[in-house]
Amino acid sequence: MPELTEAQQERLDLVAEKHARAIGHLKKTGIDCWLTFSREGSDLLLPFVMGGEYLVGIAALMLFADGSSTAIVADYDVSQVDGAFDVVHGYSLDWIEPFQATLLEKNPEKIAINYSESDHGIDGLTYGLLLKLQGALKPIGYQDRLVSSEPITEMMRAVKTPSEVERIRRACAITQRIFDDVTTMLKPGLTEADIAGIVNERMTTYGVTPSWEAAFCPSVASSRSARGHTPPGAVALRAGDGLAIDFGVRYEGYCSDMMRTWYFKKPGETKPPAELQDAFDAVRDGVLMAAELIEPGKRGFEIDAPVRQLMATRGYSFTHALGHQCGRLAHDGGMVLGPDNARYRDRSHGALEAGMVFTLEPVVGPIGLEDEVIVTETGCEFLHPTQNAIYLV
Amino acid sequence: MPELTEAQQERLDLVAEKHARAIGHLKKTGIDCWLTFSREGSDLLLPFVMGGEYLVGIAALMLFADGSSTAIVADYDVSQVDGAFDVVHGYSLDWIEPFQATLLEKNPEKIAINYSESDHGIDGLTYGLLLKLQGALKPIGYQDRLVSSEPITEMMRAVKTPSEVERIRRACAITQRIFDDVTTMLKPGLTEADIAGIVNERMTTYGVTPSWEAAFCPSVASSRSARGHTPPGAVALRAGDGLAIDFGVRYEGYCSDMMRTWYFKKPGETKPPAELQDAFDAVRDGVLMAAELIEPGKRGFEIDAPVRQLMATRGYSFTHALGHQCGRLAHDGGMVLGPDNARYRDRSHGALEAGMVFTLEPVVGPIGLEDEVIVTETGCEFLHPTQNAIYLV
Repeated sequence: MPELTEAQQERLDLVAEKHARAIGHLKKTGIDCWLTFSREGSDLLLPFVMGGEYLVGIAALMLFADGSSTAIVADYDVSQVDGAFDVVHGYSLDWIEPFQATLLEKNPEKIAINYSESDHGIDGLTYGLLLKLQGALKPIGYQDRLVSSEPITEMMRAVKTPSEVERIRRACAITQRIFDDVTTMLKPGLTEADIAGIVNERMTTYGVTPSWEAAFCPSVASSRSARGHTPPGAVALRAGDGLAIDFGVRYEGYCSDMMRTWYFKKPGETKPPAELQDAFDAVRDGVLMAAELIEPGKRGFEIDAPVRQLMATRGYSFTHALGHQCGRLAHDGGMVLGPDNARYRDRSHGALEAGMVFTLEPVVGPIGLEDEVIVTETGCEFLHPTQNAIYLV
Repeated sequence: MPELTEAQQERLDLVAEKHARAIGHLKKTGIDCWLTFSREGSDLLLPFVMGGEYLVGIAALMLFADGSSTAIVADYDVSQVDGAFDVVHGYSLDWIEPFQATLLEKNPEKIAINYSESDHGIDGLTYGLLLKLQGALKPIGYQDRLVSSEPITEMMRAVKTPSEVERIRRACAITQRIFDDVTTMLKPGLTEADIAGIVNERMTTYGVTPSWEAAFCPSVASSRSARGHTPPGAVALRAGDGLAIDFGVRYEGYCSDMMRTWYFKKPGETKPPAELQDAFDAVRDGVLMAAELIEPGKRGFEIDAPVRQLMATRGYSFTHALGHQCGRLAHDGGMVLGPDNARYRDRSHGALEAGMVFTLEPVVGPIGLEDEVIVTETGCEFLHPTQNAIYLV
């Protein structure tokens, strides 16, 4: 086994930090065992860093309220959990026997598993896997001990540890640096797809990968293009166009998600047209107002409503949530800063806590402006410098 | 709305090809409606191309045995399903009302949903989502109409259409081209991580993305490194080392998954050491034997067993399956060419059909050799040229 690299050691430190928090939550919630049961394809849904983010075989990762931890993984996956769990069983053929033996020894009354009706970010267990798990529990009479891990996972995912925040901060810094690089390289005639190519090349240079599905990250849209989740197209930018790029990078497992706006000047112009500037100012004021309002204890819709109101008085409206959580995924699940309506109600009533990271994006029309803040004990802090003026090309 | 690019039109053609097949399967299996119910985070688990591979909001994609199709998606996701479904409802707030109205109009007796105990590739529905779905069906009395879509999805995913095969073939061609580029650039002193960097730069140049999680794709391992699912490390290659790269690219939504082997000569050497050559020859003979054996109607373990036996007589053994399916994902789920044992039994008993794509990888020790074949009416065909000799550096 080669020596650990610095990055590998940092990762193990992060896992230890998260395990310690999780065990604290177990004690508080009266749950005896937190079981993350996964197989290939469920990796992205693991609700937090347990170690073993890319397991291929069937895996049972268990934390116990007594402070101990056990991982049962396929032999070829052992290197991913080594050092992160007290006990690691690498099975060659049969995961059920060591799984049952572990549970029988610990005899947990309540076993929390990862599902959630309201929050996709912690809804990691597929129905087929649940059936498989129940099949392994029944012979030892434990099939009725399962409960939802929601009370633990919500907090584990949402409230970031210092190491996690540091990673997100670095992801944001690299994202802004790429925006700055792009600004120097933009010129009329480039298509949206060309500009996406520049962003991709920059990601390779800085050694990072896209925050979400590569076909849509970056999203590059001229003011003449349909917005939304569409890949960059063949539209060539020309004088008089606005441009929005929505984009983020994954740095050591943690994501950024930011947007910026450019304007391609016509001959003789020295600034963007009044209409574009007015929309930008409204969005920017919305972001700043949200940042002013955020503090621990407030609920998501209490931040969203006044900003939506401000935008309305300025003559603009948006239907999506003002902001979402960001962390292991760009859309990290959990509560949103969203309206108190049918689409968002079950996610906009949670209370803010220090350590949560949110995007702020009251975007309208061709404006791209999305920033990230971390909730602090007394308010919030931006994780990066914000955009104060439309970038001119 | 900008005109469709050629790639967008090709994608819609592919979706139409898949929908037609699916409706044929519905009629054959007596299922009235196939419902893919998803939200953000479940996108990769969609079992086939329905259109709408990267939906963010809650979505209900429905194909009916009468040949019609309806998609209910969030308004910001509409552009992804436009043109792919007869009816597209873009909701702003409430997905339940149009969903219930569609079902009440069609009145399907059997509604197939995507879950599977044995096959992760079609186990797309999380338990939290199932609860949400049941909550929407109960008020209209449809909650007992749900069945597993397994009989449809297995075939939909496994048996590729001509357009799908063409995409996989191109992904394989680009992968081999990158292997060839890498061969000209390898030299002693490069670390595994350096070599991964070269592969990443080549992917950007050819406009493709990794087949699986970027941190593990490419997998680059010297003969002195631990094998398995570990990221490329700081080990520098030197004379006398073997090198295996396991790697694939995603091209227009379809993946390759291939491995190749290199040897770094010592001064005076003109060929690899006998030990390495012997292992390579055994693996290569295993691949060729498997390709000889494959034909429609045979079962997965009937291909795996004789190859495993051949390897044993040559003094080698491997514990993983001989081969897996490859398509929308590198590990595409479904049946495997695997042993008849506890780990693989539920996936190695399926029968081969023309149109299925498998990897062949009886790999041992430091040898990387993994090829892809498509099952034909009479046997199988390699999707690319195979490696006949260890590449020398």
